[in-house]
Amino acid sequence: MTTDDPSADPRTLTREEQVLDRIQRARRRKAKVRDELITLAHGAGGKATRTLIEDVFLDAFRNPLLEPLADGAVTGELAFTTDSFVVTPLFFPGGDIGDLAVNGTVNDLAMCGATPAHLSAGFILEEGFPLADLRRITASMATAARAAGVTIVTGDTKVVQKGKADGCYITTAGVGVVHPGLTLTATAARAGDTVIVSGPIGDHGVTVMLARGAFDIQADVTSDTAPLNTLTARLLETCPEGAVRCLRDATRGGVATVLNEIAESSGTAIVLTETQIPVRPAVRGCCELLGIDPLYAACEGRMIAVVDRDTTDTALSALRSHPQGATATVIGRVAPDPPGLVLLHTAFGGTRIVDVLVGDPLPRIC
Amino acid sequence: MTTDDPSADPRTLTREEQVLDRIQRARRRKAKVRDELITLAHGAGGKATRTLIEDVFLDAFRNPLLEPLADGAVTGELAFTTDSFVVTPLFFPGGDIGDLAVNGTVNDLAMCGATPAHLSAGFILEEGFPLADLRRITASMATAARAAGVTIVTGDTKVVQKGKADGCYITTAGVGVVHPGLTLTATAARAGDTVIVSGPIGDHGVTVMLARGAFDIQADVTSDTAPLNTLTARLLETCPEGAVRCLRDATRGGVATVLNEIAESSGTAIVLTETQIPVRPAVRGCCELLGIDPLYAACEGRMIAVVDRDTTDTALSALRSHPQGATATVIGRVAPDPPGLVLLHTAFGGTRIVDVLVGDPLPRIC
Repeated sequence: MTTDDPSADPRTLTREEQVLDRIQRARRRKAKVRDELITLAHGAGGKATRTLIEDVFLDAFRNPLLEPLADGAVTGELAFTTDSFVVTPLFFPGGDIGDLAVNGTVNDLAMCGATPAHLSAGFILEEGFPLADLRRITASMATAARAAGVTIVTGDTKVVQKGKADGCYITTAGVGVVHPGLTLTATAARAGDTVIVSGPIGDHGVTVMLARGAFDIQADVTSDTAPLNTLTARLLETCPEGAVRCLRDATRGGVATVLNEIAESSGTAIVLTETQIPVRPAVRGCCELLGIDPLYAACEGRMIAVVDRDTTDTALSALRSHPQGATATVIGRVAPDPPGLVLLHTAFGGTRIVDVLVGDPLPRIC
Repeated sequence: MTTDDPSADPRTLTREEQVLDRIQRARRRKAKVRDELITLAHGAGGKATRTLIEDVFLDAFRNPLLEPLADGAVTGELAFTTDSFVVTPLFFPGGDIGDLAVNGTVNDLAMCGATPAHLSAGFILEEGFPLADLRRITASMATAARAAGVTIVTGDTKVVQKGKADGCYITTAGVGVVHPGLTLTATAARAGDTVIVSGPIGDHGVTVMLARGAFDIQADVTSDTAPLNTLTARLLETCPEGAVRCLRDATRGGVATVLNEIAESSGTAIVLTETQIPVRPAVRGCCELLGIDPLYAACEGRMIAVVDRDTTDTALSALRSHPQGATATVIGRVAPDPPGLVLLHTAFGGTRIVDVLVGDPLPRIC
């Protein structure tokens, strides 16, 4: 339905096809950062982040391990990953920057199919930061590490002058062991596969937004921050080899961003059914008030699994047998067309494109 | 000459012995952070940093791999380390935050006796940071990585609002491979060992101070930032097994801090001869003008090696055969008494204690 030949006559395309064609052509162009200054959008996990990574970081550091731009790098049996955490506020219902930093890195390793083993932690502290808050954060990191079965084995602390940070930033890195022969990659998704989400989406993003107190909204929402490594282990143990195509935790940019990356990497379409996407009523209500689409709201303890259609039931029961996946559910399927796009069959019977995130509706969510 | 018994009669000690006794007793006390707020000293690498690490981080995360508080953690054949970089200014003669971040992590792995393999990089960028500067930094990281023979395989980027950072902070982590059976540890230093420094000290610290432009001093100094992994490899290959007791790069807190840590860990004294300590004339001149002791000024491409006395000549020739160690020289020796202290035979014929750093004379040096 689209063409690679730029001279193709647009009159042979329907209006809808022309739109798709324009989006797909834009995506094929080599990503170039056109801005001269960094904006919040560059850190949002969406289109600008992707362009920055491809044009600046990948261009400078290019190597086969970095190139897949996955949650972590896998070399032999070793998985290696890092994430910086700048969430504000530092403490929010259901968690804080400490367990977020541990779970985030544990989950990135888990998404590579690795068993997380050791973490490092680099702290950048602002002069004047209360020691009591730091103790609370390290206690929460220790608890999260114990829960995930990892140890924090090395670290570093820097202090910057007042006004040169925002209390506390944490960068965790992690190493884990990948079972030989196991490869999970977004390129492996193929038409017919099933798209599963491990639980309700958007809890973390909405919780952090409300915790900032900028909106006068009272709602019973808490972050979903949690380690997913035993959940992924159970799924991978239970399903036949190769049946789990890829796993992705839906953090910055939410489920929509992750699915766009999978669709793009694999050259498939992902077709979602809106009524099947689990969103807690309180989260949905807040999203409506805040004008945020829950598909773009960050989760910190939810993952997307793309599995072979024939393994759907096995995968669902494996996930549902685990507390972190108790309400796992199918939200869509992988289709051949239109390649690289995510489509949503809406509750009202229409279909819309779920595009990658532009701008940053939720800065510093993790 | 000292005693563990608090009831011992102080009158049996000479005045000098009483001073040593007081210092050593203070050090034996469980370190406790008494401040309620983080200060710049907590990030300086000296006494306050050590107390923060022991009382807050070690207390929360305690495990056998973290406990040695070395430059990195070694588990089996894997070495793992991390460092955050907040240097200001970002660009200075001889380097920038980019090559500093790569070399710093490469060197921490090298000091564990590991062959560095892969690095991660987490960027925290301030809104409004020029893309051109970011490209310059990533180019410099790429060059440094190539020079050290490592690849940057995974990363993360966060953006914070203007005024919540200082342009660009980078946290690198690294993994490397340790030769089976090799153990380098500060606890291994023993009386009679030789203390070697790989080159002139203090260049980086002084360069960064001058680059801030706060002092009207013009001097021909450049940072010594450099990867030390091929230097350590040559040293370890050449010396007999076990003859190299420990390696430490003298970054934050300088040579004085590293030597204090070695003396304390091994329960030995380290006795330096001031006239043997290599300091470039320009660096010495700047230190005098700035009121900084070069022993506390950071190096980013210099290391301390403690080696068996019988291996001194072999170690020196191995180091001197490498460009990074061309002017390696003996600066002191390990002695049995007074345990845990660093003494300096001064150029004027006296002896003074080189204590651990208190406060932060050089904030944000790396």
